[in-house]
Amino acid sequence: MSTNLSAVTISPDQLHAFCVAVMEKVGVSPSHARTTADVLVTTDTWGVFTHGSKLLHGYEHRLRGGGLRTDAEPRIVHASAASALVDGESVLGQVTSTFAMRQAISMAKQSGVGFVAVRNSCHFGAAGYYAWLAAAENMIGMSMANDVPIVAAPGSRTPVLGSNPIAYAVPARSGNAIMLDVATSIVAAGKIFAAVQSGKSIPAGWLIGADGLPTTDGTKFPQEGALQPMSGHKGYGIALLVESLAGLLTGAAVTHTVGSWLFGDPSDPTNHGGAFLAIDVEALMPLEQFYARVDKLIDEIHETPKAMGSDRIYLPGEIEWEKRADALAHGIALPDDVVAKLRDVAKKVGVKSPV
Amino acid sequence: MSTNLSAVTISPDQLHAFCVAVMEKVGVSPSHARTTADVLVTTDTWGVFTHGSKLLHGYEHRLRGGGLRTDAEPRIVHASAASALVDGESVLGQVTSTFAMRQAISMAKQSGVGFVAVRNSCHFGAAGYYAWLAAAENMIGMSMANDVPIVAAPGSRTPVLGSNPIAYAVPARSGNAIMLDVATSIVAAGKIFAAVQSGKSIPAGWLIGADGLPTTDGTKFPQEGALQPMSGHKGYGIALLVESLAGLLTGAAVTHTVGSWLFGDPSDPTNHGGAFLAIDVEALMPLEQFYARVDKLIDEIHETPKAMGSDRIYLPGEIEWEKRADALAHGIALPDDVVAKLRDVAKKVGVKSPV
Repeated sequence: MSTNLSAVTISPDQLHAFCVAVMEKVGVSPSHARTTADVLVTTDTWGVFTHGSKLLHGYEHRLRGGGLRTDAEPRIVHASAASALVDGESVLGQVTSTFAMRQAISMAKQSGVGFVAVRNSCHFGAAGYYAWLAAAENMIGMSMANDVPIVAAPGSRTPVLGSNPIAYAVPARSGNAIMLDVATSIVAAGKIFAAVQSGKSIPAGWLIGADGLPTTDGTKFPQEGALQPMSGHKGYGIALLVESLAGLLTGAAVTHTVGSWLFGDPSDPTNHGGAFLAIDVEALMPLEQFYARVDKLIDEIHETPKAMGSDRIYLPGEIEWEKRADALAHGIALPDDVVAKLRDVAKKVGVKSPV
Repeated sequence: MSTNLSAVTISPDQLHAFCVAVMEKVGVSPSHARTTADVLVTTDTWGVFTHGSKLLHGYEHRLRGGGLRTDAEPRIVHASAASALVDGESVLGQVTSTFAMRQAISMAKQSGVGFVAVRNSCHFGAAGYYAWLAAAENMIGMSMANDVPIVAAPGSRTPVLGSNPIAYAVPARSGNAIMLDVATSIVAAGKIFAAVQSGKSIPAGWLIGADGLPTTDGTKFPQEGALQPMSGHKGYGIALLVESLAGLLTGAAVTHTVGSWLFGDPSDPTNHGGAFLAIDVEALMPLEQFYARVDKLIDEIHETPKAMGSDRIYLPGEIEWEKRADALAHGIALPDDVVAKLRDVAKKVGVKSPV
């Protein structure tokens, strides 16, 4: 029973079936379970293991607690021709977010663009997945969500905004969308925890301490201090755009009223907000012409002279698409921490672990 | 004839009338001249002098050269219910961008959201102005444009993308929108030139040199090396979103084919691209409720405990609104470089300088 990274490999289909089985065991409908597994397993194939099937462990806790509901469906509260407000009714965030982006895509097919904002959602995993749903329909997609504050504003001593992720995807002829999915904090909180665990100091510029000034000591985070926003006032400003679209505009919880999906009372809904935009390429330009332009830019970037010591320039998402091709061909090589979480959740719900 | 900053003060109305007079003198229609002056003077009242009436000097050169046309109007190439493509026909970028955002606002009033992409535009000044046009109509606005490459990608030795600005505005009850307008480079190129002029070295992380590695020597920029993107791959990725929406999707010039509005042949159109999004708040939430939520968040951020040495936390745009209030009450105190450019353009076209 090795937990070595390369030794525990699983096919995406097997992992998908396992995720579905775990969720169904705690009352999730087959349809919601499949949708959620689609998101989690796709994310694992991209190599983004922090946001893949590892999350199932926390979701299971919250599903049993009732904070994530299994007896409801996301619904459209009201809609115009090209915008809509969706209430997620506290079902799995992946279900609500997929529903919302599909609605945005459907509106964009009719009207050229679709914008769907969401309240009563929960943690939605990798923001990039929903942007990619739009790219798969020949659209440019954007997705974002608010979260519990852990990031400072310039001049603050305590957290002001969440790491508020924002993602986009631009379709390419190859099927491998140009795809960016980033936290608006300077780094993910996980990088602080990892540095602390390995006894390392934190690079200057990542954290502020209890006095609000930069610190290289990560041991007191997140009880004291906060992450710094990416690029100072720029990242703070972009995080505030996310909070405005996903939080202020939707009736979702805002900043400190957002529940922690992982550490909060599992019987309380978290009331995360989200926002999803789809822009139909064909409404503006023939698809062939667009793809020729995208390909030309991709080639141009690849062929740009490299900095000393660099041998490639990547498009956003390119690393993820290469990992996915490998995972589809040879299985997903799961890191130890993911394997441990999957085994633990399997034992908890009484489903046989495939790893 | 002092060029001291505080000594040369002009009322916004006087400055507006001067800008209109200069443009009319080189053949711009009264309507285009007024629209462009609205953008330039508003930007000066915000204290963003790099993007205000100072630009008139370069625009005048390009208007006389013919690269900026005075005999055309921006037109809608095609439109769906909520998205449209606009051809700017190489008139002043401010005219095309205002036209495009007004079209997006009009679509958003009907459909909840409007997205308008633009080709054959030119330098459009401050991106935030167009986002603010939407905020003034109780909408959340976004605007962006591509430009000549001066920013590296992670791993490149030469520039890959422009500083590709992106802006948004969220309306607030006070009228002072939350408003961010940022280049996706780590700093504006102007900061490099200013440091070089004053004989200072460049802070680490702003520039790469001819080998593609970080340098503190700004003397060879922009002939060699490039600006770094804000926050590494994140800023590179966001700049590429701007290039996709404003460039790839519109038929505008892309990356190295964009003309330099300032240094290029003034008889050649620059073919900049732009993109404008308006999201109608009332289509999703009653306006009163939204404004109450915005006000609550603004108060919350203001009241957040301050870092040692800080006495305020600003909302994006707050500094600009305070400067504007002061400018409207006491006039705009113009920096020396702006005064010099205004005097020079006045002399060139034979209009009396008001400063």
